[in-house]
Amino acid sequence: MSKMKVAVIGCGTIASNAHIKAYAANPNAEIKYFCDILKEKADMAVTEYGGGEAIEDYHVILGDPEVEAVSICTPNHLHSSISIDCLRAGKHVLCEKPAARTYAEALEMQKVQHETGKVLNIGVVNRFNKGVNIIKEMIDNGDLGELYHVYISFRAQRSIPGLGGAFTTKSIAGGGVLIDWGVHFLDIVMYCSGDPQPRTVSGQAYSKLGRDMKNYAFLNMWAGPPKYSGTYDVDDFVTGLIRTEGPTISLNGAWAQNIGVEEMYIDFLGDKAGIRLQYGADFKIYSAQNGILLETAAKYKAGDMFQNEIDSFIDCIRTGEKLPSHIDTVILSSKIIQAIYDSSEQRSEIVISE
Amino acid sequence: MSKMKVAVIGCGTIASNAHIKAYAANPNAEIKYFCDILKEKADMAVTEYGGGEAIEDYHVILGDPEVEAVSICTPNHLHSSISIDCLRAGKHVLCEKPAARTYAEALEMQKVQHETGKVLNIGVVNRFNKGVNIIKEMIDNGDLGELYHVYISFRAQRSIPGLGGAFTTKSIAGGGVLIDWGVHFLDIVMYCSGDPQPRTVSGQAYSKLGRDMKNYAFLNMWAGPPKYSGTYDVDDFVTGLIRTEGPTISLNGAWAQNIGVEEMYIDFLGDKAGIRLQYGADFKIYSAQNGILLETAAKYKAGDMFQNEIDSFIDCIRTGEKLPSHIDTVILSSKIIQAIYDSSEQRSEIVISE
Amino acid sequence: MSKMKVAVIGCGTIASNAHIKAYAANPNAEIKYFCDILKEKADMAVTEYGGGEAIEDYHVILGDPEVEAVSICTPNHLHSSISIDCLRAGKHVLCEKPAARTYAEALEMQKVQHETGKVLNIGVVNRFNKGVNIIKEMIDNGDLGELYHVYISFRAQRSIPGLGGAFTTKSIAGGGVLIDWGVHFLDIVMYCSGDPQPRTVSGQAYSKLGRDMKNYAFLNMWAGPPKYSGTYDVDDFVTGLIRTEGPTISLNGAWAQNIGVEEMYIDFLGDKAGIRLQYGADFKIYSAQNGILLETAAKYKAGDMFQNEIDSFIDCIRTGEKLPSHIDTVILSSKIIQAIYDSSEQRSEIVISE
Amino acid sequence: MSKMKVAVIGCGTIASNAHIKAYAANPNAEIKYFCDILKEKADMAVTEYGGGEAIEDYHVILGDPEVEAVSICTPNHLHSSISIDCLRAGKHVLCEKPAARTYAEALEMQKVQHETGKVLNIGVVNRFNKGVNIIKEMIDNGDLGELYHVYISFRAQRSIPGLGGAFTTKSIAGGGVLIDWGVHFLDIVMYCSGDPQPRTVSGQAYSKLGRDMKNYAFLNMWAGPPKYSGTYDVDDFVTGLIRTEGPTISLNGAWAQNIGVEEMYIDFLGDKAGIRLQYGADFKIYSAQNGILLETAAKYKAGDMFQNEIDSFIDCIRTGEKLPSHIDTVILSSKIIQAIYDSSEQRSEIVISE
Repeated sequence: MSKMKVAVIGCGTIASNAHIKAYAANPNAEIKYFCDILKEKADMAVTEYGGGEAIEDYHVILGDPEVEAVSICTPNHLHSSISIDCLRAGKHVLCEKPAARTYAEALEMQKVQHETGKVLNIGVVNRFNKGVNIIKEMIDNGDLGELYHVYISFRAQRSIPGLGGAFTTKSIAGGGVLIDWGVHFLDIVMYCSGDPQPRTVSGQAYSKLGRDMKNYAFLNMWAGPPKYSGTYDVDDFVTGLIRTEGPTISLNGAWAQNIGVEEMYIDFLGDKAGIRLQYGADFKIYSAQNGILLETAAKYKAGDMFQNEIDSFIDCIRTGEKLPSHIDTVILSSKIIQAIYDSSEQRSEIVISE
Repeated sequence: MSKMKVAVIGCGTIASNAHIKAYAANPNAEIKYFCDILKEKADMAVTEYGGGEAIEDYHVILGDPEVEAVSICTPNHLHSSISIDCLRAGKHVLCEKPAARTYAEALEMQKVQHETGKVLNIGVVNRFNKGVNIIKEMIDNGDLGELYHVYISFRAQRSIPGLGGAFTTKSIAGGGVLIDWGVHFLDIVMYCSGDPQPRTVSGQAYSKLGRDMKNYAFLNMWAGPPKYSGTYDVDDFVTGLIRTEGPTISLNGAWAQNIGVEEMYIDFLGDKAGIRLQYGADFKIYSAQNGILLETAAKYKAGDMFQNEIDSFIDCIRTGEKLPSHIDTVILSSKIIQAIYDSSEQRSEIVISE
Repeated sequence: MSKMKVAVIGCGTIASNAHIKAYAANPNAEIKYFCDILKEKADMAVTEYGGGEAIEDYHVILGDPEVEAVSICTPNHLHSSISIDCLRAGKHVLCEKPAARTYAEALEMQKVQHETGKVLNIGVVNRFNKGVNIIKEMIDNGDLGELYHVYISFRAQRSIPGLGGAFTTKSIAGGGVLIDWGVHFLDIVMYCSGDPQPRTVSGQAYSKLGRDMKNYAFLNMWAGPPKYSGTYDVDDFVTGLIRTEGPTISLNGAWAQNIGVEEMYIDFLGDKAGIRLQYGADFKIYSAQNGILLETAAKYKAGDMFQNEIDSFIDCIRTGEKLPSHIDTVILSSKIIQAIYDSSEQRSEIVISE
Repeated sequence: MSKMKVAVIGCGTIASNAHIKAYAANPNAEIKYFCDILKEKADMAVTEYGGGEAIEDYHVILGDPEVEAVSICTPNHLHSSISIDCLRAGKHVLCEKPAARTYAEALEMQKVQHETGKVLNIGVVNRFNKGVNIIKEMIDNGDLGELYHVYISFRAQRSIPGLGGAFTTKSIAGGGVLIDWGVHFLDIVMYCSGDPQPRTVSGQAYSKLGRDMKNYAFLNMWAGPPKYSGTYDVDDFVTGLIRTEGPTISLNGAWAQNIGVEEMYIDFLGDKAGIRLQYGADFKIYSAQNGILLETAAKYKAGDMFQNEIDSFIDCIRTGEKLPSHIDTVILSSKIIQAIYDSSEQRSEIVISE
């Protein structure tokens, strides 16, 4: 069987650190095109990969029937339109998270997926994380008893990315810490608790510490350096409370806050046991037995979740299997995030009818 | 000037550990009556105090014109009726927290306070805590800039008090962890942020880990031991989101949860600085200056907040000063707590009109 | 039922910190005599307890028919003779650990116990420790699978007690770190693994760091201060290897060593799971499930093991129950300790015939 | 002077990572043959080295008079026969550790060395380690005072190599964790303490966690992956106690155990000072002076011990110097390891006559 030809659109950090490496290690795929509007980024990707063609215009990909699959790694504002173009051109798509800037855009993507029947997966890569899957299995098995509440904390003191750039410009990114970090945390919760339907969503998002760009003190800046002439109109703090058909979910998130403790974790509260998952790291299980309180740490071979994601993407195209990262599942968290932003604007709870 | 005669109604732990000790140390007050329906508790209080009379029926106090002031330290279900009886009998009242089981009961107390003009203070003792007052002052001075959000965490792994007793019986206590612990945390937030009017309140309260009393594993139990033949119908976990005229407030609280980390703190998030207050202990201030992130710990002589509370109560009767613990202020957190319970029942947000 | 009259012979640290406190808290026992050859120690005990009579000669106890039970808390060299005298005088005996200086002495005690039928328990107090009992239960239940090896580490950098005093004088104490600390560690292992018969014992004991008393550097000294004119002829380091009908046991122990890491723990190695017990503290369980390695910490209400020991002693006199601390069980570790000392002298393994 | 021609027999990991690299960096040696029964391994070695000839049959080497020296890097079961063949063919030999599967095989090798007079060194590479040599020097200088005991810990939670392969098959490897890891640890102790004669050896070896191959949980596997159809009949845990003319030695070792703490170190206990050497890493010296306890860490340029080993081997052929890795020295640890296995089988101590 010949290797599947794929293309990567957008050759920034996430493409280089994750997608390209993983395609390179996949025996059934071969990258034919590296596309970026900044030609030098595409060129660097070719060098890194040791092959493929660097292009600036993704329409070349649309017109090449040999390309079966596409990774979309552009800024958020292009996710929807490029995904739709690719699907309509008969390509299978793996689009980076978040699905889109808004729920409306995500719905449009889902609609076109349904029309074309091509794969549309979103880069909710934690669904391919070993630890997350162990937790999901434990919850499915009833090891936690009834999962009644989940608390999500994604709070850092100073982590605004690329102040003044694409990440902090609402018309490009769609939002700030909620859409960029929150999407991962929320997605883990949705996945582990069985993707329950949301019922009510209330939240409040604040744009505070990055606003006065010149006076934003920081030690390091990812996706930096700051562009002081740029825009900062996204949320750097968010709080929320969500009722679902399953557990309630409360959350606090901060790209920046004047509290100097980094708290990046998810608490799954069940009536038999509970789990605290440190994001991107390990977890602890808390339970009780015969009057003894137990605290259990698990060690396991984590594997490379990006590799799993890409391998699964390539496989599912061949097998037709519907992955947990399919737009039909991920659309739910897009709905919730939109509702948090809407609730924040209206300063009142959004009720989601069944 | 002769000493003011006071009476203590309810001679349990809070009376013995706080009120009686503080009256004993106050040079202007003298306890004339110790009242408890369990005579031996009243007797023990007399012995402890070294004076006064032990009685079983608080109507004795109502009928004694010499008594000017009363501390009410009974279980919650008697707060309202006894406070009202005392006020109508012309006594000044310091009633332990929470004001009452329900907002309706608290409103009734406030009404009678207004009618009688006698003092009615509630035992929100943290308003007499040195550290809390330092924080309030900093916020008032603008040291934190705009205070936009407060997060309240009052979460313990196993701390249900007196399982099956008064604390866990809704008809007596009015509720569980929210009304017992949450009232203190929420009150600190209200006090420090200027007692802002609430606008929307959403919350969900769960009664999970204590429900199956026999299988509730614990290491120690305050207000214990368990009465397995008793009742457990109160909340042991609560989450909430409150919008006010000032900051938004999010909260998670647990008397019991399957997470083995005790997190008892309040985060005040301002755009210039923030503070994490460890409940009942110290606090840290986080700020930034010239690109440097600062973490400041404050040391101060804490004093005895219960002593301050009692001393202020006695003083205010003489001076006519309205204390921050007056029912007119505390009524707000009673309203919020009621709204959280109501929201939990309705599974939707409560909007509070202006 | 009237309270049982007991006597305490030897009023040093272990009597004062453990036995007397525990008798005081036991509702069924009352101390009639406190005996010590140093009268002031006995007097202090009377004051501490608030009653009883201080005596210097334990024969008073032997002659008082009202005394039913005796705690023997003297230095080791008197354990055997006083226990035997008490048994013969019709008293039940709880003798502090080690049973005696030598196996021969311990055998003599056992013989008299058999002749008189009175209780003779040894102060192997860890058999009344909650954590130890949880471990024993897990092993009995097969949770560890086959328990094939146990490693015992009781190593401190500088902890020689009372240099030059009773603890370091072989004719009084019978030995050093092995008989004083090792007896506790070995006893826990014997208890948890079902008191298996020893088959071979090899060991080597060294008297090194305390020998040159003047130059022994230390930070603190328990049972101190040093008596430089005294004797130091006991082991401060010991190593050993024991084969039993159950697991093999290896051990290293040091009252003093030139390694600056304190390692006080027991490793139970099973083929399904293992446990590391930190002496006097908590333990961790290590297991595997579905390719995941698990590390579990247990929290439990520890209780007071000395209280349990005394309460069980008093109860067993009434009920006739044979406790796990009976001389018939403890004689085994006495045999092993003797064999280690013998092996050390002969520089070869001791084979114990069945 | 022309370069010495050498050959490498066995082109697996240790050849590739150590021997070949070191010969390449040695100005006086040149590899003429790379021999492996798997031709592709030999070919890869040629490519890696950039020269030499790949062969499958080591008799080619025996018959080539130009080859002066040979490195033997085969599995253990071929060490003895190939070393002997090489010595008899007039070659100098550096044979990887362990010398052989059994003491009998090692003795045979030594015999032939004596007959032929050719060099026979064993790959006890730690004798060429800088840190180990510093410790040896300190002990030789008397810095530790009398070295009375050494404790060896080589314990890992999950480190069985190549489950089911050559490492875990007794007929190939001769044993498990004792012969593979223990040989290195024991050799360091022998070297540092002056290669003292053993007097008694007792030990017990267990084959437990790897036995049920399918259910062996692990995170990573060196020399892997597992061959579930292969053999597992070697020790994964060992304990031992050795008396020598110098210090006593106790040891615990595990390729796999249900204790989740990796403890890979050697404790040298002297009466003046002690040293804990972390295997393959740094060491700390513990001493006392004027009542002060000192903990000293040593920093030094470690160098490459494999390079030192190879350089010394080449040099000693020219100079005739007898290296500390000579079979005459290493034979002692072979004797001890054999005695531990024998003792384990007999379940009693082995006495070694002088």
